Amino acid sequence: MYKERLTKLKEDVWRANVELVERNLVIYSFGNASGIDRESGIVVIKPSGVDYKELSPENMVLVHLNGVVETGQLNPSSDTRTHLELYKAFKDIGGVVHTHSRHATAWAQSKRPLPCLGTTHADYFYGEVPCTEVISDEQIKSDYEKETGTLIVDTFKNIDYHEMKAVLVACHGPFTWGKDPQEAVFMSDMLEEIARMNLMSVLLNPEAGNIKKTLLDKHYLRKHGEHAYYGQRSLPSSEV
Amino acid sequence: MYKERLTKLKEDVWRANVELVERNLVIYSFGNASGIDRESGIVVIKPSGVDYKELSPENMVLVHLNGVVETGQLNPSSDTRTHLELYKAFKDIGGVVHTHSRHATAWAQSKRPLPCLGTTHADYFYGEVPCTEVISDEQIKSDYEKETGTLIVDTFKNIDYHEMKAVLVACHGPFTWGKDPQEAVFMSDMLEEIARMNLMSVLLNPEAGNIKKTLLDKHYLRKHGEHAYYGQRSLPSSEV
Amino acid sequence: MYKERLTKLKEDVWRANVELVERNLVIYSFGNASGIDRESGIVVIKPSGVDYKELSPENMVLVHLNGVVETGQLNPSSDTRTHLELYKAFKDIGGVVHTHSRHATAWAQSKRPLPCLGTTHADYFYGEVPCTEVISDEQIKSDYEKETGTLIVDTFKNIDYHEMKAVLVACHGPFTWGKDPQEAVFMSDMLEEIARMNLMSVLLNPEAGNIKKTLLDKHYLRKHGEHAYYGQRSLPSSEV
Amino acid sequence: MYKERLTKLKEDVWRANVELVERNLVIYSFGNASGIDRESGIVVIKPSGVDYKELSPENMVLVHLNGVVETGQLNPSSDTRTHLELYKAFKDIGGVVHTHSRHATAWAQSKRPLPCLGTTHADYFYGEVPCTEVISDEQIKSDYEKETGTLIVDTFKNIDYHEMKAVLVACHGPFTWGKDPQEAVFMSDMLEEIARMNLMSVLLNPEAGNIKKTLLDKHYLRKHGEHAYYGQRSLPSSEV
Repeated sequence: MYKERLTKLKEDVWRANVELVERNLVIYSFGNASGIDRESGIVVIKPSGVDYKELSPENMVLVHLNGVVETGQLNPSSDTRTHLELYKAFKDIGGVVHTHSRHATAWAQSKRPLPCLGTTHADYFYGEVPCTEVISDEQIKSDYEKETGTLIVDTFKNIDYHEMKAVLVACHGPFTWGKDPQEAVFMSDMLEEIARMNLMSVLLNPEAGNIKKTLLDKHYLRKHGEHAYYGQRSLPSSEV
Repeated sequence: MYKERLTKLKEDVWRANVELVERNLVIYSFGNASGIDRESGIVVIKPSGVDYKELSPENMVLVHLNGVVETGQLNPSSDTRTHLELYKAFKDIGGVVHTHSRHATAWAQSKRPLPCLGTTHADYFYGEVPCTEVISDEQIKSDYEKETGTLIVDTFKNIDYHEMKAVLVACHGPFTWGKDPQEAVFMSDMLEEIARMNLMSVLLNPEAGNIKKTLLDKHYLRKHGEHAYYGQRSLPSSEV
Repeated sequence: MYKERLTKLKEDVWRANVELVERNLVIYSFGNASGIDRESGIVVIKPSGVDYKELSPENMVLVHLNGVVETGQLNPSSDTRTHLELYKAFKDIGGVVHTHSRHATAWAQSKRPLPCLGTTHADYFYGEVPCTEVISDEQIKSDYEKETGTLIVDTFKNIDYHEMKAVLVACHGPFTWGKDPQEAVFMSDMLEEIARMNLMSVLLNPEAGNIKKTLLDKHYLRKHGEHAYYGQRSLPSSEV
Repeated sequence: MYKERLTKLKEDVWRANVELVERNLVIYSFGNASGIDRESGIVVIKPSGVDYKELSPENMVLVHLNGVVETGQLNPSSDTRTHLELYKAFKDIGGVVHTHSRHATAWAQSKRPLPCLGTTHADYFYGEVPCTEVISDEQIKSDYEKETGTLIVDTFKNIDYHEMKAVLVACHGPFTWGKDPQEAVFMSDMLEEIARMNLMSVLLNPEAGNIKKTLLDKHYLRKHGEHAYYGQRSLPSSEV
């Protein structure tokens, strides 16, 4: 039972990592996707610095939520500890993705939250996508990757991670999450799209701010929550 | 007779929806094309939230102009009521397209009309492409998708929809139309192209305004209207 | 003899038109390439408004320098008279190309000449690429396409068309030329590349102006003219 | 022994030149890669002005560090003397690449160093990528290509070329290097990526400056140097 779940999870995580490349969200090996088996607390993640073409379900790495890596495997992604912090704080997410996708990273580097300028954004992100503070020297010097996770969690003190499945880490790049690795990949792709559109809108009109609450609610809630009326009902919520 | 027309229309609408993806105007399922059989008042439109790869002429949805959906079908696109308003107000159009194409949406999000900066634009759009007001709270709370249609129609109070087959809905994205679904797709593609060019021109020269009336007339009218002299005469007007 | 030259020219002009599409310089049928047989004064040009996939060496159109079209053919490109003016004024060019390529057109729409900001530009264009005045109402109302040619020729009163094989027509787009249709296509492609680079440079540094004369001379003249030392000697000058 | 090394080097240099085209870093023949056999002092480089499709390991050109070209070969790249200066000054590099890639060249033309705005940059370049002064008239008029090398070397007076494997030559474009031609190609590709991201960040926030030293050190040093902990250890340092 556990074995079967794990086999499927390794397959899903591998596929998510491959999809990041196919969707042009990752250059070289700048990115990683993971998934968690909540029952056992096992996180499956991409190995560090391995070429995407050599990835397979078999060489995905198993890590316990406490950080212990299963023996006899490749080293896990250097960002693993950030993923673990997110799984610990965001209790019911099932997948996490980190990329350096071009437009989302450009915003992260500008240290600006991504304003919600239109309905494309509002359909999937409930308001502006937050940008963290720049990580402190203390955090850099202690346990950098873990502290990057703490920084994200702190940023979400007053934000519901169910309605905002993305964050920009200042001077770094985006992290996204979802109920499984596939939804996390989807959120990364949508984030990149709106980062691209919104960059252009801001150049055209620097005063363009967040859309009003009524419009945001209308769009976000027609797709999400109990009164949703978009789609065919039987489709998964990540299906646009 | 009616049956044959409908079979062809379903084929045309399906093809138009597929073309939106192929022309890179639609990401995921952010977009929809429809067509109308004026004699029967039946509108054919894409189903809501279905993956493009699973679309076929058969699963296109039939909706009466009054909003009643034929039974036994998938749910129609969530934007259907906007399409219906356009068909009701713009009496002789045969197709409508809605996309979130990147550059046109960037302009819509900036809440600026698209100025007519050159002859590429003037060849197909007779002047600047209007941008609606931001939809009011009352409209959002009553019948949102229908009111989006009303908003567009109101914007065209003093504009001839035959000469301006596109609109930017503020904080949302573009709608285009034409004599059939294929022309509506073509207008969406041209709109995206000029939105892209004009964005760059405005960055290079923020003072660049609409071209003068003589040049606009020259270009628009050499392709359209009774004195047109472009092309081989036998080509449809949507053929550039 | 004349017949063989013409057969080759039709083939060359057809290939040039196809190459414009392959190089992504033309969307839909916004563009045209032509060539001239100087001995007979016959210009070969693309037919107007015909889909690129239906072009062939056989349906290229023959036009005399005086504007008379050979009978029994398709209508020539609506821009034909502009091409003819260029062939008449620029005595030893053999090919002309007109496109609405995105970045070059963006500059033309901004009504700014394209500054020479670097050596990529200096390798092929001897100084800034001029932008015409906006065409006058009189010119628009008389013989518009012919007058577009006059406008270009007037712009070159003090510029040597051998060293500057491109122009931006204000509010319209670029024209390029060369010793044959292939070189004219090459110049269109290079123009688009530098229009793209230079746009970004100008956004990064609005004060970046033309490079100094010594650097311009060094680059232009190491590739062109009698002291050229670039390449393998036997290569045609359009070969970079 | 020497013969075998040379055969491999010609293969490597040919492959590097082909990769530049495949990675979209070179348009037409604007670019060149070279490698050096340190023992014999022989540099292998692309011939000048030859179409990429006609390149082969066999037609790569052999040049001595002192500038003498082996007889019976094609002319070497016109930028050869710049490469030679770099090999002479940067004692342990094994490959050099020059491109006119779009975004890096846009920065070079703006005469601005590329600021280090984020961790994508910091992972591979230890601080901002320097931009040279504009080359002097004296240098242009003496031995231009050699002096371009001198200009680069002068720019690195206080910079360690092991930690900064790239430079922007003002009004020209980028040069990169590495332990072999492949690493030099990789650095060109990374440089183009960060030039692209950073351009957008600067448009979004003109005040965004270099990231702080602690963050730069953390990222650069976790991948490079004796305390590196990224990857699987057995991977070459150029493997991301």
